[in-house]
Amino acid sequence: MSRRIRITLAYDGTEFHGWQVQPGLATIQGTLQEILSGIEGGPVQVAGSGRTDAGVHARAQVAAFTLHNPIPADNLLRAVNRLLPPAIRVLETAETRTSFHPRFDAVAKTYRYTLFRPPICPPFLWRYVHHYPYPLNEEAMIAAAPLLEGEHDFTAFAAADGRDDECQSNVRTIFSSRLERAGDSLIYTVRGSGFLKHMVRNLVGTLLELGRGNLDAAGLQQFLTPPVSRKSCPTAPAKGLCLESVEYAPE
Amino acid sequence: MSRRIRITLAYDGTEFHGWQVQPGLATIQGTLQEILSGIEGGPVQVAGSGRTDAGVHARAQVAAFTLHNPIPADNLLRAVNRLLPPAIRVLETAETRTSFHPRFDAVAKTYRYTLFRPPICPPFLWRYVHHYPYPLNEEAMIAAAPLLEGEHDFTAFAAADGRDDECQSNVRTIFSSRLERAGDSLIYTVRGSGFLKHMVRNLVGTLLELGRGNLDAAGLQQFLTPPVSRKSCPTAPAKGLCLESVEYAPE
Repeated sequence: MSRRIRITLAYDGTEFHGWQVQPGLATIQGTLQEILSGIEGGPVQVAGSGRTDAGVHARAQVAAFTLHNPIPADNLLRAVNRLLPPAIRVLETAETRTSFHPRFDAVAKTYRYTLFRPPICPPFLWRYVHHYPYPLNEEAMIAAAPLLEGEHDFTAFAAADGRDDECQSNVRTIFSSRLERAGDSLIYTVRGSGFLKHMVRNLVGTLLELGRGNLDAAGLQQFLTPPVSRKSCPTAPAKGLCLESVEYAPE
Repeated sequence: MSRRIRITLAYDGTEFHGWQVQPGLATIQGTLQEILSGIEGGPVQVAGSGRTDAGVHARAQVAAFTLHNPIPADNLLRAVNRLLPPAIRVLETAETRTSFHPRFDAVAKTYRYTLFRPPICPPFLWRYVHHYPYPLNEEAMIAAAPLLEGEHDFTAFAAADGRDDECQSNVRTIFSSRLERAGDSLIYTVRGSGFLKHMVRNLVGTLLELGRGNLDAAGLQQFLTPPVSRKSCPTAPAKGLCLESVEYAPE
């Protein structure tokens, strides 16, 4: 009998070529599939809530797969963590309904981006922040961040290499878009229905342009106003980005 | 004219073969010497406050070297940090007296060791903690830690491969030895006049033996009571250890 297993996992993306399987390269999905296939004794396909780029981290990514092996979910968690490198940890395993799909069933995702502001970045932080010690009009950035909230065509913030291949539309809803000072860092937290490829990194790149004085609030709003144009802002580096959580409707 | 420069530096020791230069291996001292020799245009010898083992970290190691190059100390800091890998950062540079020696002039050092207790170690922490999720009598360990304070012959806590090659005696003074619960971790903080090779890791290994019930407080005190015997306790892993600070007498 086949069982559908839902897992929550955390990873340090520094040493991985992103989520998605790529032949000959270490990826999160590929590493999980290899270990789960070994436990299953046959091929296991792991579906994620979405891809993360090379260097992007996750505190609570959600994935799912189908197993025939009757191993209890708790034992599976321990077995997988023993085989995974320490940069990937499974935090939770649970049986779920056969039709559960972590991507199509997701109702919201939250990402966090960290800009580290002091002149020197400690060696314990460099993997997890974008070190940006240069002048920024932080007040203008903080004031502008909520302007991104709402349902918009985010084509201007999509990856330059074109439209998302699994979705027909670039319309998404951002429920919350906030930037705040927290100690030595500027932290951008964005919660939305879904995100286009590179979208969060492009939102941060755009806020940085605003902080540098190369763009004002009206210019930012224009990116969201039809007719929308192609991306023009720089993409912020991957390493400052972390997938914080994925939400699902209660069953 | 020659100048003596004192630097404070932080490093993530994970990818380094310790402090001390070793031919063909990446070490902290070797990396610094290579970069400083390039700036100087001739060989530069860097002296540290002490060696750290492979995998041990530092939040504020102190080192010193002699330069003929007239580069201002502030510019030197920026130039060195541009050339260093992100796992090593110079936090401060300052001119000091010609006779300053970071090892022989040190009056105290503080080390911190982190035991992470939950069942799963997050991927963002594994480099910096010893993940120990197994049962421990934490109260007994906390009560025993201060018994290590005072002036003692610490031969029982010296590295198994023999006496420190630069010092004739194994007598050291521990000013403070405390273990405490801080959130999910047990943190051991020890401040002393100096430490033998592997000494802090052996102190932690001994406290772990006590926590497992393999040793009691009287047994621990016996290790400090003449006639002292050779090491018998396991050495705790390097990655949980961090050199927190080095103190000097006011000039």
